[in-house]
Amino acid sequence: MPVRLIDSLASTEPLAEIFSDRSILQAMLHFEVGLARVESRLGIIPQAAAESIAAAANPDAFDVAALSRNTLRAGTYGIPLAKALTEIVRSRDASAAGFVHYGATSQDVSDTALILLLKRAQPLIESDLTRAGQALQKLSEQHQHTPMVGRTLLQAAPPITLGLKAAGWQAALHRGRNRLTESFAQALVLQFGGAVGTLAAIGDKGPIVAQELAGELGLVCPDAPWHTHRDRLATLVCACGVLTGSLGKIARDISLLMQSEIGEVAEPESQGRGGSSTMPHKRNPVGCAVTLAAANRMPGLVASYLSAMVQEHERAVGGWQSEWPTIAAAIQATGIAAASIAEITEGLSVDSARMRENLAATGGTIYAEKAMILLTAELGRDKAHQLLEEATRKAVSQHCPLAKVLTEMPEVTKHLHPTTIAQLDVPEGYLGSADSFRLQQMRATLPAKTPVEK
Amino acid sequence: MPVRLIDSLASTEPLAEIFSDRSILQAMLHFEVGLARVESRLGIIPQAAAESIAAAANPDAFDVAALSRNTLRAGTYGIPLAKALTEIVRSRDASAAGFVHYGATSQDVSDTALILLLKRAQPLIESDLTRAGQALQKLSEQHQHTPMVGRTLLQAAPPITLGLKAAGWQAALHRGRNRLTESFAQALVLQFGGAVGTLAAIGDKGPIVAQELAGELGLVCPDAPWHTHRDRLATLVCACGVLTGSLGKIARDISLLMQSEIGEVAEPESQGRGGSSTMPHKRNPVGCAVTLAAANRMPGLVASYLSAMVQEHERAVGGWQSEWPTIAAAIQATGIAAASIAEITEGLSVDSARMRENLAATGGTIYAEKAMILLTAELGRDKAHQLLEEATRKAVSQHCPLAKVLTEMPEVTKHLHPTTIAQLDVPEGYLGSADSFRLQQMRATLPAKTPVEK
Amino acid sequence: MPVRLIDSLASTEPLAEIFSDRSILQAMLHFEVGLARVESRLGIIPQAAAESIAAAANPDAFDVAALSRNTLRAGTYGIPLAKALTEIVRSRDASAAGFVHYGATSQDVSDTALILLLKRAQPLIESDLTRAGQALQKLSEQHQHTPMVGRTLLQAAPPITLGLKAAGWQAALHRGRNRLTESFAQALVLQFGGAVGTLAAIGDKGPIVAQELAGELGLVCPDAPWHTHRDRLATLVCACGVLTGSLGKIARDISLLMQSEIGEVAEPESQGRGGSSTMPHKRNPVGCAVTLAAANRMPGLVASYLSAMVQEHERAVGGWQSEWPTIAAAIQATGIAAASIAEITEGLSVDSARMRENLAATGGTIYAEKAMILLTAELGRDKAHQLLEEATRKAVSQHCPLAKVLTEMPEVTKHLHPTTIAQLDVPEGYLGSADSFRLQQMRATLPAKTPVEK
Amino acid sequence: MPVRLIDSLASTEPLAEIFSDRSILQAMLHFEVGLARVESRLGIIPQAAAESIAAAANPDAFDVAALSRNTLRAGTYGIPLAKALTEIVRSRDASAAGFVHYGATSQDVSDTALILLLKRAQPLIESDLTRAGQALQKLSEQHQHTPMVGRTLLQAAPPITLGLKAAGWQAALHRGRNRLTESFAQALVLQFGGAVGTLAAIGDKGPIVAQELAGELGLVCPDAPWHTHRDRLATLVCACGVLTGSLGKIARDISLLMQSEIGEVAEPESQGRGGSSTMPHKRNPVGCAVTLAAANRMPGLVASYLSAMVQEHERAVGGWQSEWPTIAAAIQATGIAAASIAEITEGLSVDSARMRENLAATGGTIYAEKAMILLTAELGRDKAHQLLEEATRKAVSQHCPLAKVLTEMPEVTKHLHPTTIAQLDVPEGYLGSADSFRLQQMRATLPAKTPVEK
Repeated sequence: MPVRLIDSLASTEPLAEIFSDRSILQAMLHFEVGLARVESRLGIIPQAAAESIAAAANPDAFDVAALSRNTLRAGTYGIPLAKALTEIVRSRDASAAGFVHYGATSQDVSDTALILLLKRAQPLIESDLTRAGQALQKLSEQHQHTPMVGRTLLQAAPPITLGLKAAGWQAALHRGRNRLTESFAQALVLQFGGAVGTLAAIGDKGPIVAQELAGELGLVCPDAPWHTHRDRLATLVCACGVLTGSLGKIARDISLLMQSEIGEVAEPESQGRGGSSTMPHKRNPVGCAVTLAAANRMPGLVASYLSAMVQEHERAVGGWQSEWPTIAAAIQATGIAAASIAEITEGLSVDSARMRENLAATGGTIYAEKAMILLTAELGRDKAHQLLEEATRKAVSQHCPLAKVLTEMPEVTKHLHPTTIAQLDVPEGYLGSADSFRLQQMRATLPAKTPVEK
Repeated sequence: MPVRLIDSLASTEPLAEIFSDRSILQAMLHFEVGLARVESRLGIIPQAAAESIAAAANPDAFDVAALSRNTLRAGTYGIPLAKALTEIVRSRDASAAGFVHYGATSQDVSDTALILLLKRAQPLIESDLTRAGQALQKLSEQHQHTPMVGRTLLQAAPPITLGLKAAGWQAALHRGRNRLTESFAQALVLQFGGAVGTLAAIGDKGPIVAQELAGELGLVCPDAPWHTHRDRLATLVCACGVLTGSLGKIARDISLLMQSEIGEVAEPESQGRGGSSTMPHKRNPVGCAVTLAAANRMPGLVASYLSAMVQEHERAVGGWQSEWPTIAAAIQATGIAAASIAEITEGLSVDSARMRENLAATGGTIYAEKAMILLTAELGRDKAHQLLEEATRKAVSQHCPLAKVLTEMPEVTKHLHPTTIAQLDVPEGYLGSADSFRLQQMRATLPAKTPVEK
Repeated sequence: MPVRLIDSLASTEPLAEIFSDRSILQAMLHFEVGLARVESRLGIIPQAAAESIAAAANPDAFDVAALSRNTLRAGTYGIPLAKALTEIVRSRDASAAGFVHYGATSQDVSDTALILLLKRAQPLIESDLTRAGQALQKLSEQHQHTPMVGRTLLQAAPPITLGLKAAGWQAALHRGRNRLTESFAQALVLQFGGAVGTLAAIGDKGPIVAQELAGELGLVCPDAPWHTHRDRLATLVCACGVLTGSLGKIARDISLLMQSEIGEVAEPESQGRGGSSTMPHKRNPVGCAVTLAAANRMPGLVASYLSAMVQEHERAVGGWQSEWPTIAAAIQATGIAAASIAEITEGLSVDSARMRENLAATGGTIYAEKAMILLTAELGRDKAHQLLEEATRKAVSQHCPLAKVLTEMPEVTKHLHPTTIAQLDVPEGYLGSADSFRLQQMRATLPAKTPVEK
Repeated sequence: MPVRLIDSLASTEPLAEIFSDRSILQAMLHFEVGLARVESRLGIIPQAAAESIAAAANPDAFDVAALSRNTLRAGTYGIPLAKALTEIVRSRDASAAGFVHYGATSQDVSDTALILLLKRAQPLIESDLTRAGQALQKLSEQHQHTPMVGRTLLQAAPPITLGLKAAGWQAALHRGRNRLTESFAQALVLQFGGAVGTLAAIGDKGPIVAQELAGELGLVCPDAPWHTHRDRLATLVCACGVLTGSLGKIARDISLLMQSEIGEVAEPESQGRGGSSTMPHKRNPVGCAVTLAAANRMPGLVASYLSAMVQEHERAVGGWQSEWPTIAAAIQATGIAAASIAEITEGLSVDSARMRENLAATGGTIYAEKAMILLTAELGRDKAHQLLEEATRKAVSQHCPLAKVLTEMPEVTKHLHPTTIAQLDVPEGYLGSADSFRLQQMRATLPAKTPVEK
């Protein structure tokens, strides 16, 4: 199912399908059928009624437009659904009509339907995260020794490796994914509480029906109904927010590295991807743009969800009614960001030659710290600092490599060997613990027992 | 067109239609046809080409699913549209194909399409605001003299009138509506700048084409293209946020007044409206719930829009791409809130007898301030305060009307005449400037020349 | 240290103190001294230098006003601090000056200082959460059998128990607290990476210095520096947001129950607490107001923090610089909410008689569902529903108890025994699984081994 | 007064001073003294009492720490202030004590105090906006003809002028400033309504006292008290949000142009400004970072303020109590962004030679559109497009200027004159309406009567 145009940069197709009318209807019917089955099994309603309900629960039999209109009138999704189902059941088996939605409240069916939809969304997002994680791991290993300019406040700084950079991306993605998985595990719980969360309509059978119904639907059974306690879902939306923030950071970095003037990496190229209507030569960071768009929207969506948490008594007036569009948008934003980063990282072109050129283009000023350390050992910090400030200023103003400037300063050459100065701007000579930190991060992202290296 | 289930509490049907695939497609074609017409009129492209383009611009001829998919690949809405239109034109008049979208960039067509959609949304929202405004005005006049409990921090306080309360709602709605109208006026401007906002592809004809195109589309022509300057749209989204906040305040008040224990007003009743699946007797504040839901979501949507404002150079990577779903959600949230408040206020039941009962039920403690003022004139503030504190404490603990307690305090009766004490808890006697403030607010919301009273 | 007036409703004193100038300064000095100690121990800097640095690191020696001004000029907190410390060290031991802040970057000191402050904040917040949790547990046990009106969309609904309601509050608070604790554990990690996260200035000693420094400061040592990966802190801020949302829900409920017209509970009373300047008798829900204020602000603070996550390359331009005020506000908002809820729940007055009165005041319409179930067994759902709708309507319009109305309906009395009808509105007879759900939630909040009941 | 360390990147000193304890205290006293004066003038309280109150209202006489503590207990700022003032008055003139805060409610004094603080903040922010506006105007005029690379999605695109870019910045700043000024004008209104907005305590004198008090304080008198209608302040906060978004866009652009690899502009250099603790040569975009930090925080602050708008009845429980820290943070964020942009734009270094180098470094591919237009006239769009795609691909892969590639294509040279091809990559030849759009924007930002050119 294609994404609507208005959302075409904001969702993947499979996730858009999950929040489609038919999918929502089906999930609500799934709840009603499951409830009838369990209640008949436990002798609360007749078995024949459960069968009639199951038989009637065919999405094609529903007038979705009417359902939507009636939802607005009712102020809740579940009542029109239960009524429509009841009418269909009645038309086939009048005696069963009274057992539709038995003991449940409207929020039971719509909350549980939402949870069932989220359960379907989880593997879709996680599979893209797996792809991205594997791609980043490969990238980090392949470029373990590829030096590039480190950049702080967008200014050239001492060198790092692409391997370290990718490992940082991957470690954050991995942490974010773990939190997402954990928050899905917390959130995928049944909602079933009846009018006020006591399930009084089914006497003392509340807990057993809940237990069985959760099993029937493949969900966890919570300690109690949670109509106005939305912290589990809020935590899930937050996990989406944090993860999308980390994906946005990757996209920001890649889009910056793709700048024409930097050109160190590029998004994969393919037909119709990232071109420009007016500039035939362009290769735009469209996956980054889509990811950054998601990262732009998520904080507001998280805020909306959190704002809705302050829900009144046993059923909210306003907070709850605001949730569906927000959570659907949040899940889809996370999904499109994950899919985009997967696509980008799997097909990323790396121009390591350009990385070296950009290192060289700094004229070695990024090694001033290194030179200072070398001189400090000989001259003390103050003198070293003063010499380096002078040298760097000259290097910048005269567009002359720092190493060369230093060679012309007697106070420097008195203390540093020409080879030392000559090797000042070899990036490999000033990577510090880049690879240790790379390895430590990669190890942290691996499954417990798998050794990352021999 | 029915609202999708996921959005069924979050939009009106007419607003949902505006952001439908077909409507968006039509708006984009509207731009392309308008551009071709203007460019042919100004001799930039052949007249025959413009005619072929206009003839080809039939929404039915487009594969919307493909358009949506290609949008994601392209990272922008305009390129796939321009390509698809070009192909349709080519199939009918090959010589015209090169003149589709001539001189424009993809963002020109999608931004202008968005503006055209917003232009259609404006009267829909405003007409509901007019209904709500008129209903509130009537309510305020009808209940000019209807006393009710004032409530601060949800505690009973001195009396107000429903007329004053309604006037406050109406004044805020009126201010919010004026800001909305003003911000629509600012925002409904053409976008037309070509690749980088210089319209270089059409030589020096940029300004004249822009001027004519704006006229053709019924939009204002801005000083310059505004691809990465989104302040006008941001201001519109903010105006939606502020207005929806004010509508939410009305809904909060009404839902509180509708509480079973208070019961002073009620939303209109009608078939299928606000019932409960488990409680046949209930009359839920569903219009309030839907309005409060909108007010819950809007702050996050505003934040998302503002976050997207920091757009790079001549075309953003991320910020711009995030806008469509946010602005569509914001407009629809505002619209459903306006429609709900219109419906609620037009059909609001007022139980003024219950209002008097609730006033009486306070036992007169809400007039303690009044009593204190009366006594202060006689005894000085400190003594008066001390007496009142004692009296109020007794009134509350003994569930005895304050007036009665005061009658039994010699220090009070020495100074206050029995009639004065007896009339202490007549609400009309302690309304202060309620009606002046009511009238001043009502006057401020009227069109300049219309006198509100003789 | 008193809270500033501007924040006086937004922080507790101990938390305000944590983010005071002196506390921040001390935390930054703590880092610098720890770093010097570790580096001297590992032979990177002379031991004498470490001692001089430790001796110089006296907050009183610093000009905080200058520090603040220089921070704005430098665009970062760490540089002015390192410079000022260097000057003080130099004035006492010139040879040590060059070893201040050795190998570190400005963000290392300020990020780690922030973490040290957060570490101090954790027990303060958690201790209030413990108080609130214990109070709620007690409340839930004491009121295990106290019936009260259930309320959905602010309308009277079938009964619940206060015990169940309190258990729901406690379960949500407990889950929120666990998430907070877990996210503190994740977040309390050292920051130490040097200019670009490679610690190149100290050769290959980065990991060992980091390890030792973390130990010195009582923090966890992360896999790698995380200058531009803020997901751990973002998760902490989110956990604050979710928890504060749950606290806000408690406050909303209590403030609603405190309404003059409902009067079922009240915040504790004490001198100067919650009075009104104009209404001497009032007992305002001030703890609720302060908690709800925190819950109002948190979603926006969370959004701000998440928005800042998209940080550039090895050091951000903008995102990082925005964090301090946001995280300080978030922690303080969470803390004041926790403290307020602790105070409220510890001293909550419960008026269970009023609860029964409010149950009675519904005229039994809240038992319509129960009556329907009883009649359905006899007459089938449709007939039962029709009778109940009629009866309820009559009960409401005639202000007559539902049970009485039913007694007058032959179709009802034919099937239901008078005693059954008479007991219709005994709340204890329609509590369903209230106590099971209460118990299950209470059990879930207890430490693993402690049995809640024999 | 120096900014606190925690806020040192988030406020200017003068704005921090405005929200200091003393300043808030003074503003509240200003209200109380003004009220007493007006009430004595109108015969509501004795003149001697007013004089005693004025004499007592000395900030130095107050225990601010106690005030802050009592504020939290009271849940409101005004009660402790009124009590403390009353005690001071009483100690000097017992007979006057009863006339302190006469007829007012606590929110009257704190809301009006806030408004008085905002009134002081307005000229501070506007004066920095004036500086920035003038600097941008000068920049735009000086660089009217300075070509630079246009950049879309961070990729090189056809040329623009720095003059056009600066004009776009200035136009957005100008619009944002106008909205800010307008929203200040709306917001700077007196709050004075007494307990429930009827001013009942002063009989029918509410409107006249309000009128006079507004005059006394230099504020506008609104139609009615607005305790729970916060739309005017919300509009002000939104205007701050939109303006800061536009300032953030300027900062984003400048920080990107300052990248080492681009180097087209630089923030002004001065002692201690934007250096790096580890990299002596760096010139960091610190003003941009601080501005972007403000732009990062503002959307969440706006959301917080809007969330607080849904206020209950005549006095809110939660919404109102959340406002002070949010509005103070929003005003300070806007102010620091304005001040930073003023400083940056006044001292911006422009390297127009580097701009030309960067244009040249694109190898002319940014003129592909121009070439296509030239060829389309000769060969039709399809053929032209195909040739250009081929040529651009070759130019990019062979690192050869596009013009040179085209010279070697017979199909091109057959139709385009060598001079035409040679001039393809002269930026001045493809600026389209850049200067018209520049001028139109500059004119729009000028005062009505001032001609921008002869």
